[in-house]
Amino acid sequence: MSIIQNQNDIRDMARGAVFLGAGGGGDPQIGELFLHNQLAQGRKPNIVSAETLDDDAFVVSIAGVGAPTVLVEYLVSEAHLLDLLEKAEAFYGRKVDALISAEIGGANSMFPLALSASTGLPVIDADGMGRAFPHLEMTTFSVYGSKATPAIVTDELGNKVTLDLLTDRLAEETLRPVVAALGAMVFSAIYPMTAKFVKANAVHGSITHSLAIGRCIREGRDKSEDVFETLLQYLNQPDEDRHAKILFDGKIVDVSHETRDGWHWGKAVLRPLDNGPDEFEIEIQNEFIIARKNGEPAAVVPELIIVLDRETGEPMTAEMLRYGLRVKVVGYSSAEIMRRPECLEVWGPKAFGLDMDFMPISECVA
Amino acid sequence: MSIIQNQNDIRDMARGAVFLGAGGGGDPQIGELFLHNQLAQGRKPNIVSAETLDDDAFVVSIAGVGAPTVLVEYLVSEAHLLDLLEKAEAFYGRKVDALISAEIGGANSMFPLALSASTGLPVIDADGMGRAFPHLEMTTFSVYGSKATPAIVTDELGNKVTLDLLTDRLAEETLRPVVAALGAMVFSAIYPMTAKFVKANAVHGSITHSLAIGRCIREGRDKSEDVFETLLQYLNQPDEDRHAKILFDGKIVDVSHETRDGWHWGKAVLRPLDNGPDEFEIEIQNEFIIARKNGEPAAVVPELIIVLDRETGEPMTAEMLRYGLRVKVVGYSSAEIMRRPECLEVWGPKAFGLDMDFMPISECVA
Repeated sequence: MSIIQNQNDIRDMARGAVFLGAGGGGDPQIGELFLHNQLAQGRKPNIVSAETLDDDAFVVSIAGVGAPTVLVEYLVSEAHLLDLLEKAEAFYGRKVDALISAEIGGANSMFPLALSASTGLPVIDADGMGRAFPHLEMTTFSVYGSKATPAIVTDELGNKVTLDLLTDRLAEETLRPVVAALGAMVFSAIYPMTAKFVKANAVHGSITHSLAIGRCIREGRDKSEDVFETLLQYLNQPDEDRHAKILFDGKIVDVSHETRDGWHWGKAVLRPLDNGPDEFEIEIQNEFIIARKNGEPAAVVPELIIVLDRETGEPMTAEMLRYGLRVKVVGYSSAEIMRRPECLEVWGPKAFGLDMDFMPISECVA
Repeated sequence: MSIIQNQNDIRDMARGAVFLGAGGGGDPQIGELFLHNQLAQGRKPNIVSAETLDDDAFVVSIAGVGAPTVLVEYLVSEAHLLDLLEKAEAFYGRKVDALISAEIGGANSMFPLALSASTGLPVIDADGMGRAFPHLEMTTFSVYGSKATPAIVTDELGNKVTLDLLTDRLAEETLRPVVAALGAMVFSAIYPMTAKFVKANAVHGSITHSLAIGRCIREGRDKSEDVFETLLQYLNQPDEDRHAKILFDGKIVDVSHETRDGWHWGKAVLRPLDNGPDEFEIEIQNEFIIARKNGEPAAVVPELIIVLDRETGEPMTAEMLRYGLRVKVVGYSSAEIMRRPECLEVWGPKAFGLDMDFMPISECVA
């Protein structure tokens, strides 16, 4: 039985995906609308653990690519996703056995679920980062030797581009301007892998995790408890090598946004509600990459920094931050695999231009 | 017997290609070096008239793409061209029967000849413009209904991108940043066509023409005649609906070059050698797009404007223009097909931002 059974589940899943997006990854709303529609027709995504698949099953990631603002303006068409799948199978020369998200945080959590609901193809309860990241090569798939390409990109009009590049960094640099040239809603089939590779190298349980996070927030809110209590209790389950804590409780007193080179850069400054002396600052590079309390690191990539409405617990993307919003900032350990040395080389603080070594959240202030 | 038999022929062909480049198209030197090397091994390009091919013969254009400055820094490797051909045949799903230049002006005149010399494949004595133009969609192939894509792009390292786009304008906009991302020497197989289509819609005799122009200049120079006399006599053959004349004789007194959005923009101002009152001006948009004498049009696209050393008759690309050079400027009618109304919509003066209708060279001043 699918773990996504009703409209509340979809809403929860999308909310959890925004949480895991850590400020980035785009708005899951269009994928969510698509899924609501599928569910109304009795079609549910077929979510499976990687372990249930044969080792040689052929897995690809389905992703929307391009600026989140463009994504929001277009509705996902079922015909486009089905056409992509057909063209991907022709391109790869084999049937696709299962789908996966490369990025569970944000919009790209939803598209494999959407295509699964349409076709019945299994979607693996896993992804390549357990959060959102700005670059194509920032996945465990890439770090552990599975390339993003050969990949195929299509738009809803029938344009088609295929890429077969030596490095995922080059794939990132090539894909981005292609998408900019195509301009509209662009989807890709990317990261062709075997299920054996996925079993060994993915961040597992991502969909279940996203769904549970979204559900904790909703249930916490509905029961009129402190919404954060339920959430932190779930995130700090004792069997996990992961920790979550409130890094700051306050209001946004200054925020800057800038779009440069296709990226969203910015900074938010927070102060306590009682105007106490503490100052809290969050740097944005698409995602929230570092939080500092009175100048000292409170959390840094790949640890997750999440800004949530302090009353409703609704997680916010970086674009949503505005002067005057009252928020709580949660810090949450990244998945264990994400903190390995070979991974931190690709998405540790230095990869984002920060002059510091990685610090796990448990060693930070706040 | 190939019309290219010896090293002089190759040099003539390259010189003619610079002439037909009308300031643009890049330096044919690397293709020329490749051809010299092939000839030294006894391999000659197999140049044929389109009429000799079966209607259903499969023809593709082979082109180097990217900034001319990058092209000059790399030597063409035979392995790269052969690899492109092999990948192109796999991509199109059929054997390539003949090659063609999309653009006879400049560097891309040479690569089909080079691959022909390597493989023995015929190269058609024709092209898609009879000159050089800055945009992919500016070919008679495109105007008359053959698309630039499906196309395949490869670099010497093994990177591969394929494009299948609805319009050639979109192909232009997509291909350019892909090439910029790949960065190195990039070749494409592009404009897949039937020989039947080529027979009906190409500019014919381009290779023969380029070779003859280059030869006229060399022979004129060697015989110590006025080098321009031989050339103009050839270009003004009475059986052709084409005219050539000297538009100006003088020195460059001012020249500006600017690289913006990947294009070469600029202007050259010329005065008579005797410092007489006439002023002559040439606008550059990769190619020489308009020449004005005392403010009045002397020639405008698609008519060819060619700047040549006034002593040696050597044609110059726009990048070569420098203060103090003594030059003659030749105006030369474009091929008849290039002046048809449907063609002028794509590459007439307005397509280059000039606020005027096309004027054939015979109706211009000078």
